[in-house]
Amino acid sequence: MGRALIIGAGGVASVVVHKCCQNSDVFEEICIASRTKSKCDALKAKLDGGKTKIQTAQVDADNTEMLIDLINEFKPDIVINVALPYQDLTIMDACLATGVDYVDTANYEPLDTAKFEYKWQWDYRERFEKAGITALLGSGFDPGVTGVFCAYAQKHYFDEIHYIDILDANAGDHGYPFATNFNPEINIREITAKGSYIENGEWVETEPLEIKKVYDFPEIGQKDIYLLHHEELESLALNIKGIKKIRFWMTFSEKYLTHLKVLENVGMTSIEPIEFEGKQIVPLQFLKAVLPDPASLGPRTKGKTNIGCIMQGVKDGKELTYYVYNVCDHEECYKEVGSQAISYTTGVPAMIGAMMVMTGKWKKPGVFNVEEFDPDPFMEALNKWGLPWKESFAPTLLED
Amino acid sequence: MGRALIIGAGGVASVVVHKCCQNSDVFEEICIASRTKSKCDALKAKLDGGKTKIQTAQVDADNTEMLIDLINEFKPDIVINVALPYQDLTIMDACLATGVDYVDTANYEPLDTAKFEYKWQWDYRERFEKAGITALLGSGFDPGVTGVFCAYAQKHYFDEIHYIDILDANAGDHGYPFATNFNPEINIREITAKGSYIENGEWVETEPLEIKKVYDFPEIGQKDIYLLHHEELESLALNIKGIKKIRFWMTFSEKYLTHLKVLENVGMTSIEPIEFEGKQIVPLQFLKAVLPDPASLGPRTKGKTNIGCIMQGVKDGKELTYYVYNVCDHEECYKEVGSQAISYTTGVPAMIGAMMVMTGKWKKPGVFNVEEFDPDPFMEALNKWGLPWKESFAPTLLED
Repeated sequence: MGRALIIGAGGVASVVVHKCCQNSDVFEEICIASRTKSKCDALKAKLDGGKTKIQTAQVDADNTEMLIDLINEFKPDIVINVALPYQDLTIMDACLATGVDYVDTANYEPLDTAKFEYKWQWDYRERFEKAGITALLGSGFDPGVTGVFCAYAQKHYFDEIHYIDILDANAGDHGYPFATNFNPEINIREITAKGSYIENGEWVETEPLEIKKVYDFPEIGQKDIYLLHHEELESLALNIKGIKKIRFWMTFSEKYLTHLKVLENVGMTSIEPIEFEGKQIVPLQFLKAVLPDPASLGPRTKGKTNIGCIMQGVKDGKELTYYVYNVCDHEECYKEVGSQAISYTTGVPAMIGAMMVMTGKWKKPGVFNVEEFDPDPFMEALNKWGLPWKESFAPTLLED
Repeated sequence: MGRALIIGAGGVASVVVHKCCQNSDVFEEICIASRTKSKCDALKAKLDGGKTKIQTAQVDADNTEMLIDLINEFKPDIVINVALPYQDLTIMDACLATGVDYVDTANYEPLDTAKFEYKWQWDYRERFEKAGITALLGSGFDPGVTGVFCAYAQKHYFDEIHYIDILDANAGDHGYPFATNFNPEINIREITAKGSYIENGEWVETEPLEIKKVYDFPEIGQKDIYLLHHEELESLALNIKGIKKIRFWMTFSEKYLTHLKVLENVGMTSIEPIEFEGKQIVPLQFLKAVLPDPASLGPRTKGKTNIGCIMQGVKDGKELTYYVYNVCDHEECYKEVGSQAISYTTGVPAMIGAMMVMTGKWKKPGVFNVEEFDPDPFMEALNKWGLPWKESFAPTLLED
């Protein structure tokens, strides 16, 4: 079918590459490009020899000109952006300049603020429309599959969806007393940022981790969940009909929060350098060096994730509840693609999103969130490509 | 009356110096000596101008020859050792060589083990006896005042004391989420070491912090207490008549233990260097640099300590319970001598012990623990010199 340029060579990119290679009818040729070409070469070395042809390239994703040159050289049908969220706009600029479709998994965020919002990327709508190309935003799991779940519920089961709770649970256990799955700065920001949700079209802000509940998840059991801000709330509140309230919840264990809180208390998460033996050292950087390497967690992590959406609404005047979720097993993911479920659940939908655009099923000039397209082929692909979903019409609800 | 050589210039030494200067009838002349002479000079500068004459000197307390030279030059009546416990023996050797009395606050401990026991110092008994000089061991608060409390109870109230619980509570609050009062290595060792107590003449070992109780202390309220090993158990079990069981308890807050545990979990208390930016860095050393300087805690610490002994025994065939304790206020100590209660409660008894020997009240050739002398003049001095005690004949007991 075609050619995809994959920008990034981290955990998620690795899953995308594995999945594209499994799906060689669609991804006949791929190019893996990142700042560090050796990482791309290592991925190529692992997967070379299958039906999908693999190239690699060095590229600075902050540099639009360099991206344009690479696109012109490789001539992809789509660019799959699994680099950093800071680089969404430079990559979109390059796609506009070259007339190539675009897909990413997380919305743009300026380096100097901690504000996630779609406005930066929605501002590209008219330009993508005029260029006749598609930008598919947020095609990971959350955002991504969670939006497709909502669109699927809207299409098949509801006239109006009034309440949505998105629940993201990770019951993985890496066996260390404490470690972070990815950059500890991001983990720390996650739990120290204010929470927010949308009610009657307005954002309502909470203190960090102010709202806590316990939820008994299918297949993984009771977990503490905390209300967080999350980017898909913004688009879903606009794209799903009838929304009165939409919230996002994530599991954190007591132990994890205690560790992070203590490290913050004693100053080990500070990014202000201190003088130590004649050298300026940033405590957070030193902490990273002491903690287990996130890359070492993959082979050790046992247990499952469960991410899904609980919805309440009406159909033909009758009240209805619906829960749709995916359960993903860390060890099985690792066995299949050498990454655990956190990367797997993001990388698989990125490949599927790219496939939707390349096969023309989700091809439309402009900038779109996943829930704006027909969810059925995506839902079908989830079952086929490793993220099967389950549904229930009598879930336990979260009280207010 | 006489001259005292004070070895050490840390927090406890500072209190000893202040107290000697308040007690210039006994301490007419003192010499403050430590490895870092500038610290001694700073203490002298603070207190000079009173009736007590102050000298300072540089000395390496690990070096017996150097100590002998200093003693021969200054010609003290007594050496007050408030240096490190590793240096007890070199200082005792210098006292033997020069025929000068000796007092310390903590028993000798070889650098390479974490075993506190009196055997090293008790081995000097014959030599001190033959030299006609006195060594008074452990004249701080615990050990020290706790032993005097037991001797006092034995002398005045009991025929036999069967059960002793020594309770050391610190309800001080420095306002930081976490800080250590002194060397964090020592704090960490304290909570990770096995506990032990003596029952029927035998040591019984417990897991670290295995035995926890809650005690409602006079003037400071309910606190979590943990059974620890402590050196005075060894001498009191021998010197107090009728002991069936003797235990030592210390308060630790949940918060303190959580912080220490997390820092241990993530590897920040490790003394194994790690490679960081091309340099070998010991995590514990870096942690110390991040934590508040222990010296900065003094002026900020509010609240009180309560240290005392609960005893059960018989008098004239009747069962009796007795609790004797001191309550010490961090802020008042700081106002008086510029140190908070932790240093104050150790430094004052060191001065009193030295006074007991110098005034001849506790002068006897040999090596002794405090409970082997008449407790009455020491108890009187505690009331006079800043550590007044209270007693109760109906205390709450600790069940087994």
